[in-house]
Amino acid sequence: MRRIGLLSLSSLLLLMPPSALAEDSTVMELNTVWVVMAAALVFFMQAGFALLESGMSRAKNAVNVMMKNYMDVCAGSLIFWLVGFGLMFGENFSGFFGSSHFAPDILAGWDYTTLLFQTMFAATAVTICSGAMAERTRYDAYLIAACIIVAFIYPVAGSWVWGGLFGGQGWLAALGFIDFAGSTVVHSVGAWCALAGIIVLGARSGRFSPDEGVPRAIPGHNLSLVALGGFILWLGWFGFNGGSTLAASADIGLIVLNTHLAAAAGAVGAMIFSRLTRRPVLLTSTVNGSIAGLVAITAGCASMTPVFAMITGFVGGMISVWGAWWLLRRGLDDVVGAVPVHGFAGVWGTLAAGMFITGDLFNTTQILVQFIGIATVFFWAFPLSLLVFFILDKTMGLRSSTQHEQLGLDYTEHSEVGYPEFHHAKTYHQE
Amino acid sequence: MRRIGLLSLSSLLLLMPPSALAEDSTVMELNTVWVVMAAALVFFMQAGFALLESGMSRAKNAVNVMMKNYMDVCAGSLIFWLVGFGLMFGENFSGFFGSSHFAPDILAGWDYTTLLFQTMFAATAVTICSGAMAERTRYDAYLIAACIIVAFIYPVAGSWVWGGLFGGQGWLAALGFIDFAGSTVVHSVGAWCALAGIIVLGARSGRFSPDEGVPRAIPGHNLSLVALGGFILWLGWFGFNGGSTLAASADIGLIVLNTHLAAAAGAVGAMIFSRLTRRPVLLTSTVNGSIAGLVAITAGCASMTPVFAMITGFVGGMISVWGAWWLLRRGLDDVVGAVPVHGFAGVWGTLAAGMFITGDLFNTTQILVQFIGIATVFFWAFPLSLLVFFILDKTMGLRSSTQHEQLGLDYTEHSEVGYPEFHHAKTYHQE
Amino acid sequence: MRRIGLLSLSSLLLLMPPSALAEDSTVMELNTVWVVMAAALVFFMQAGFALLESGMSRAKNAVNVMMKNYMDVCAGSLIFWLVGFGLMFGENFSGFFGSSHFAPDILAGWDYTTLLFQTMFAATAVTICSGAMAERTRYDAYLIAACIIVAFIYPVAGSWVWGGLFGGQGWLAALGFIDFAGSTVVHSVGAWCALAGIIVLGARSGRFSPDEGVPRAIPGHNLSLVALGGFILWLGWFGFNGGSTLAASADIGLIVLNTHLAAAAGAVGAMIFSRLTRRPVLLTSTVNGSIAGLVAITAGCASMTPVFAMITGFVGGMISVWGAWWLLRRGLDDVVGAVPVHGFAGVWGTLAAGMFITGDLFNTTQILVQFIGIATVFFWAFPLSLLVFFILDKTMGLRSSTQHEQLGLDYTEHSEVGYPEFHHAKTYHQE
Repeated sequence: MRRIGLLSLSSLLLLMPPSALAEDSTVMELNTVWVVMAAALVFFMQAGFALLESGMSRAKNAVNVMMKNYMDVCAGSLIFWLVGFGLMFGENFSGFFGSSHFAPDILAGWDYTTLLFQTMFAATAVTICSGAMAERTRYDAYLIAACIIVAFIYPVAGSWVWGGLFGGQGWLAALGFIDFAGSTVVHSVGAWCALAGIIVLGARSGRFSPDEGVPRAIPGHNLSLVALGGFILWLGWFGFNGGSTLAASADIGLIVLNTHLAAAAGAVGAMIFSRLTRRPVLLTSTVNGSIAGLVAITAGCASMTPVFAMITGFVGGMISVWGAWWLLRRGLDDVVGAVPVHGFAGVWGTLAAGMFITGDLFNTTQILVQFIGIATVFFWAFPLSLLVFFILDKTMGLRSSTQHEQLGLDYTEHSEVGYPEFHHAKTYHQE
Repeated sequence: MRRIGLLSLSSLLLLMPPSALAEDSTVMELNTVWVVMAAALVFFMQAGFALLESGMSRAKNAVNVMMKNYMDVCAGSLIFWLVGFGLMFGENFSGFFGSSHFAPDILAGWDYTTLLFQTMFAATAVTICSGAMAERTRYDAYLIAACIIVAFIYPVAGSWVWGGLFGGQGWLAALGFIDFAGSTVVHSVGAWCALAGIIVLGARSGRFSPDEGVPRAIPGHNLSLVALGGFILWLGWFGFNGGSTLAASADIGLIVLNTHLAAAAGAVGAMIFSRLTRRPVLLTSTVNGSIAGLVAITAGCASMTPVFAMITGFVGGMISVWGAWWLLRRGLDDVVGAVPVHGFAGVWGTLAAGMFITGDLFNTTQILVQFIGIATVFFWAFPLSLLVFFILDKTMGLRSSTQHEQLGLDYTEHSEVGYPEFHHAKTYHQE
Repeated sequence: MRRIGLLSLSSLLLLMPPSALAEDSTVMELNTVWVVMAAALVFFMQAGFALLESGMSRAKNAVNVMMKNYMDVCAGSLIFWLVGFGLMFGENFSGFFGSSHFAPDILAGWDYTTLLFQTMFAATAVTICSGAMAERTRYDAYLIAACIIVAFIYPVAGSWVWGGLFGGQGWLAALGFIDFAGSTVVHSVGAWCALAGIIVLGARSGRFSPDEGVPRAIPGHNLSLVALGGFILWLGWFGFNGGSTLAASADIGLIVLNTHLAAAAGAVGAMIFSRLTRRPVLLTSTVNGSIAGLVAITAGCASMTPVFAMITGFVGGMISVWGAWWLLRRGLDDVVGAVPVHGFAGVWGTLAAGMFITGDLFNTTQILVQFIGIATVFFWAFPLSLLVFFILDKTMGLRSSTQHEQLGLDYTEHSEVGYPEFHHAKTYHQE
């Protein structure tokens, strides 16, 4: 991320002739227009997540999934403003966390734009959990966990890489860690929290056969919504990666092209891996393949050429299919595949960002730095979120009762059902 | 709204050196890019309204709701071009209406951009009615009312505040009335028309118990669409408020940030108000709370800091829940809550815009001006639309027959049904 | 399309004073921002197509339709990068096809932006087929056909009009053929391929009565998705037409305004034509009418005034209703109306672009050139795609077996169903 120091810019302006002044204000306005549009696209990803997660869940939990997604962007945005932004982007002379700009009210114009863009990123990080943990998590407990992630777990890890906007620098940034738009900072953090959540929660009733633990498919209730969610996420990612320039730049064309080709290659990778391993080519795994391609290219989209972007996305898509199988073998029930898509493909993408630098391929020092970043973020986010979910489970209770799970959380938690007029099976298992 | 006088700009250009000329053309192009993108986002709000309104209605009226939303943007855009734009933005030396630029065909480039943006606004104003009046309004009568609103009621009120683009000034603008993007000009006008509509129409059959008038819930048929509609409206509002600068500006960051935080606070406000008053926290009221937050911040998003934006949105969200209850108590059946969300929260937001001006908090003169604007717009839009709906009802008939209402308007008015293959209850009341 | 020669720009830069240099880089950044945002909107049209096509098909094919749309953008984007871009935009000294820039990896920054935008266009061209051929086409055969179209049929025709980005010029461009954003180059090419496809495939079982060939309606399973798809396509078209400036420009306001008014007029045209010919005014034909208006205005949106844009759209909408009837009379089963909407309205729009040039109305030479372009593109795309589909049909088989068609392609081809929990009729005919 390129940073524009407003104070230094202002002092420069005093030394410039009037025509240069006008020109610089045009540049600032152009930057604002681009980053605001990108922020709008990132916001729209919330709708994509909501549709994808809802479509992959059963009809009896449709309202619950939507409410979690709607409320985590609401509560998450307010809390990120209150605490997270300062912790992530405030003065960071230690390199480990920011310590200014909490609850910022009066800022320079450009900093409002930055705050807006980063608020959308924070909302993305937190929402990754909700899909993995769908269909059996208590709503109140989920919202509390989401607030802790967005207030503390995400911003501290983020400050290591992107911190120091108002002075100082994160320690991983100082090492030269490359994570342009957040394969590790955003997606893996979300995925490691999701992994912790599904470990504490346990699988949904009926997900594994009671005797031998053989997985049984629980199909999502609306695959049209899944595909629409996939398209919307793909669209939003153009803002997610393209906007991470934090300025209008001629590089945006390459960044967004890489993003697009990696997504396409991710879907093709998932399809080919499924065929090679004699799995059916599912719509759900195709959509997840493209999202894994997007996650993977997020770290290196600004520093590799299209050919390597396609390789990065292709392998990301394959990993998402393999990772879903790997989790199932361990008895872990990730409803939407958030951990393989955002976690495993995020690890791969962060490595790929180190391997495929244009003009500096396979630089071993860089790859080592990437490993360090991946590992330290994992060992920050995973144990901490495990602790949070564990404490929530032991105190207020994280998991819904079996009765609630069977009736559906819409009925038991939200007093509304998603499709009151349509006759549908109250529980559904495909055996 | 900041206005860019094209003529004065052109005369300036003649006095400038060539490099400055090139620079000004870049500024004009940048302004065009921003306002066109914002117009696209405002257009997309139509999809948000359509989904929200359809999702909150019963399946048997899904096509009808969609058709109303689709056709009011079509017919509305053509009629606003023909009449409304001139009435709202034409030469306005009286201060009460515009009188030039009807059916504009040859304009300067920038004015096409303005016309585009304002056409999208007009379509938004008119579509607010359709949701409130859903499930029992005759399609033809609705379309005629929509055309009258977009051709006459909306543009005249609008000319008081935003008029005089080609000379003169609206009388409320001259008083100093603050309504940056239209809490009153757009949203309240739509809501007062909706209020008139539901008064003339009466409640849907079965909405109140026949003996004591106790309200009975008629749940919407698809809450996934409601949540998606909410996300799309929220997204579109970034263009609605951000584009109302009518130029690329470094202020857009603050404006869109305020918009976002107010929406988040609106949902939280609706949630907290529901809990405090022992109501269930519904998805529908959460989504409506966020939209009420958006409506409320629309007037003052450019003139307050984020803290006040959150307060404005939070109170707006509370008002939307309270207002829905208040209407029900009076036997008024607003299917989607358009009157509390766009009307009551719009009034609050217009007051808040006067109260929370950065550097000039609680200026009583300003608050008085805001009251005058709110009241005069109400006394323009409400009685006039009441008259329109009354005349339509007495002549061609505004309300569908009970038989049509029971069969569903899709079947009786549109020869198509929304979901022909799915078995669903033909009528549904939750008691 | 305006072209920006990067090499000549670079050489110019060497001669300029530093302030002019900074200014030119701002212009380049602004162009990048606009074209990338436009590309994002064009990408989103894929979601619009997917929803429209899925909603107009039966529930048993929902996954199949979505998969086709998802995979043709994935495979299509990769193949366009590999072959299509070079064939369409590479050095074109013959005027008939490009011959450089295959599999482009290292490009100047601006060319990445162009490649991105053109990739989205290619994906649009190919996806037009899928809707027409829905519900009875084998998935593998469709994907192969889609790849041939995007690798060869579309780019060669495109090179005649838009080719020569890196030297040379297409022969139709040299003649003065006007097709600003692709009524013929994109939409008609897609439609003629679709026409070939439905001729080779034959109608769906039950589409015509077995004895007298009377058409029987097979209603789509979800008209809410159809309307949402229509809104999204309309939105995406702002990028499709507006982005075809390939630069930020003050003309974008007029272009997008024309686009919007033509869409509105198209829906009204479809409505009025339906009423005049005593057809029911269907949601599906209203949405198709607006899209026909969009297709029609695509060729001439930059060279006519709003009044002519509305006429162009209005007639386009009427043609779409008439064309659907015309096809049915010939026993051709176009599930979504792709041929009348993208083909017939595209022909009309390309003619209209020649007739309604601002300041040069009804120039007969221009109209003749438009005819030549329309005809040669038809005689390129239609016979060639007919051959492709014929060969596919005779070798691997293009049409699903009757049993697969009756069970639904979701079940037989994709191992997933769209709505597993909802009870719905397995086959549905409206008689």
